[in-house]
Amino acid sequence: MNIRDQITDMARATRKAARQMARLSTEVKNRLLENIARGLKEQEGFIQAENDKDLAAGREKGLSEAMLDRLTLSPKVINSMIQGLHEVAALPDPVGEISEMVKRPTGIMVGRMRIPLGVVGMIYESRPNVTVDAAALCLKAGNGVFLRGGSEAIHSNLALAQIIRDALVEESIDPAVVQVVPMTDREAINVMVSLEEFIDLIIPRGGEGLIRYVSEHSRIPVLKHYKGVCHLFVDETADFEMAIKIVMNGKVQRPGVCNSLEAMLVHRKIADHFLPLAAKELLEAGVELRGCATTCLLVPGCTPAQPEDWGMEFLDLILAVKVVDDLDEAMDHIVHHGSQHTEVIVTENYSNAQRFLREIDASAVMVNASSRFSDGGQFGLGTEIGISTTKLHAYGPMGLKELTARKFIVFGEGQVRA
Amino acid sequence: MNIRDQITDMARATRKAARQMARLSTEVKNRLLENIARGLKEQEGFIQAENDKDLAAGREKGLSEAMLDRLTLSPKVINSMIQGLHEVAALPDPVGEISEMVKRPTGIMVGRMRIPLGVVGMIYESRPNVTVDAAALCLKAGNGVFLRGGSEAIHSNLALAQIIRDALVEESIDPAVVQVVPMTDREAINVMVSLEEFIDLIIPRGGEGLIRYVSEHSRIPVLKHYKGVCHLFVDETADFEMAIKIVMNGKVQRPGVCNSLEAMLVHRKIADHFLPLAAKELLEAGVELRGCATTCLLVPGCTPAQPEDWGMEFLDLILAVKVVDDLDEAMDHIVHHGSQHTEVIVTENYSNAQRFLREIDASAVMVNASSRFSDGGQFGLGTEIGISTTKLHAYGPMGLKELTARKFIVFGEGQVRA
Repeated sequence: MNIRDQITDMARATRKAARQMARLSTEVKNRLLENIARGLKEQEGFIQAENDKDLAAGREKGLSEAMLDRLTLSPKVINSMIQGLHEVAALPDPVGEISEMVKRPTGIMVGRMRIPLGVVGMIYESRPNVTVDAAALCLKAGNGVFLRGGSEAIHSNLALAQIIRDALVEESIDPAVVQVVPMTDREAINVMVSLEEFIDLIIPRGGEGLIRYVSEHSRIPVLKHYKGVCHLFVDETADFEMAIKIVMNGKVQRPGVCNSLEAMLVHRKIADHFLPLAAKELLEAGVELRGCATTCLLVPGCTPAQPEDWGMEFLDLILAVKVVDDLDEAMDHIVHHGSQHTEVIVTENYSNAQRFLREIDASAVMVNASSRFSDGGQFGLGTEIGISTTKLHAYGPMGLKELTARKFIVFGEGQVRA
Repeated sequence: MNIRDQITDMARATRKAARQMARLSTEVKNRLLENIARGLKEQEGFIQAENDKDLAAGREKGLSEAMLDRLTLSPKVINSMIQGLHEVAALPDPVGEISEMVKRPTGIMVGRMRIPLGVVGMIYESRPNVTVDAAALCLKAGNGVFLRGGSEAIHSNLALAQIIRDALVEESIDPAVVQVVPMTDREAINVMVSLEEFIDLIIPRGGEGLIRYVSEHSRIPVLKHYKGVCHLFVDETADFEMAIKIVMNGKVQRPGVCNSLEAMLVHRKIADHFLPLAAKELLEAGVELRGCATTCLLVPGCTPAQPEDWGMEFLDLILAVKVVDDLDEAMDHIVHHGSQHTEVIVTENYSNAQRFLREIDASAVMVNASSRFSDGGQFGLGTEIGISTTKLHAYGPMGLKELTARKFIVFGEGQVRA
């Protein structure tokens, strides 16, 4: 059987199994997650042995230390998968929730009931823990899940899939509800994203290259973000101390993640007071500043910014800094250089705060808080399965609810349409 | 300039204008809709003169009477567009609504603010009133709208676009926010559905052929339904009188629409009592019954159903009728032959009603009510822009809210991430 037929058969089986999954009680779903957690604990030796095969092959292929690090299922990473399973089990089950029930003039009661999406396809690279983390969220929301990880993690992924499979069988659930595609070439991705009959949604996780490849080839809707280019606008009325705390947290605390800051815009009226103070702390923390001409005049240690520095996702201790005339120039800059991820204003001016909140088109818009809060856990969604910077279906961090849909339900007493 | 460049330039202008649109106050948006309504009234002669050109060309091309009917902008149709504009103006503005605001343990307040989707693309066939109806909903939700109607309605569509344009200019809104593509060949569709940078969502309206063509070629998410194959299950405990009223309303009142009934499933235990009663009324109303073997035994005037009759969208006075053993067989039949549009159970049994509501995967699931209620207006959404039978973003009738998204907003007091 060729790859296309094999993957198609697997996906068809997942679609079928997902129908059963959609009907399971919260109790069974939670027990399933706890069984997977127990399996991970009990099979830790097996997981590490399989992971070692991937690590050995990775070293032989000359993978970078960073890549090998992402690939490693250390006891700490395994424990964090186990904790994640406990956390998802503890989250309220979104399925079955009924809301917006109203009585219509005809006498019928109309409302919405939350239901699983169906089958979620994940396409990811070297982190094998995604296999468990994604499966946990998809299963809790009553979905089937179809996983295609990277070739470098294939032994680890199949080992984790085996543990999930055992837990499913223990609860008499069709194990096809979670499938790990054993083929790791690009053709496997091409086939997977063409199976719109069996997969409802694709979530890619990994580098921008993978995400663009998936988006460009998919016949199935893709929820994704390419990058996070987050700005901080320090308004004329900003509290300096607060602004410095927020820029330091956004840039220095964890520069390699998508909700870190990449650029700071400063109101011209406060630039000569604020910039030297902020720059001092940033430079002391080892941050390279790439500034506009005015910034470079005010900050001796600053490098002149090149045009490509505006809108650049540095993911490093580098910050672009620009002096702007007012809120409008700041918002124009964000429209042109932002990535619709997270944007922040620091201000004490009520009207400017409101305008920024309303007018900035980003999945998260904040007043006087660190961009680093832009995260499913911090926002109260429980764990997150990803983040979307396109507006259809979900915008921003995606949790359990974003893995569901809502149907209309009607309670009648024999009403017919006039 | 070739077609691709021309349409791309138009869409780019709409994207730009949509940013202004997103910021307009409710007052200005409502005044705009009322201006369009006034324009339609004042320019009724111009509209009908342009519509006559389309009708003359249509007659020359030999369009069917049904096609010519859909194409006609009679005073009644123009009046219904005007009424529609008044109704949309009267609906609450969804943009700016803040919900689910909670205080997180870190002290930040996190909530969601409703925002416009961006630019909505409509692709439709012969009904020129879609130009106004769709524009009204998209504009009220703060979106740009990019319209591509059929060649047979091009004069009518351009006349309506001119009236909308005048109303936009009157309110100093960039008229590019509503564009009617003047090119009506397939190439115009191909270009339009490739412009994912400028258009966020495509809604096709028309025959199944058009909708499939758009879905198969689009790089932009498409919200659509192909057809409505709605079932009614008459359970063992059904009130016969109620069931007959509901099947008559579903089949006879307006058989040509997607929320009419195409099939009735009857519990075996009541078939010999219920079917002759129901069949009598249906046959008297001129409905052709295509039944399973048991149905044909019980109903003399019944035609034996062919395999293709199960799941068929007749859109006519034809009803497929099948006797089933129980609720499970009824739900299995619906899984295999339904179209995820609207499914109805008539029952007095509480548990069966609940199971049907929970387990049937359709955009609308009803107990003891007519499938004909499955409609944005009847459900309380105001007017509808279409119906979706896929679960991503919207499932079921789509109103104003389905033309919006929600972003996260955060109110902080200087909090940073630990």
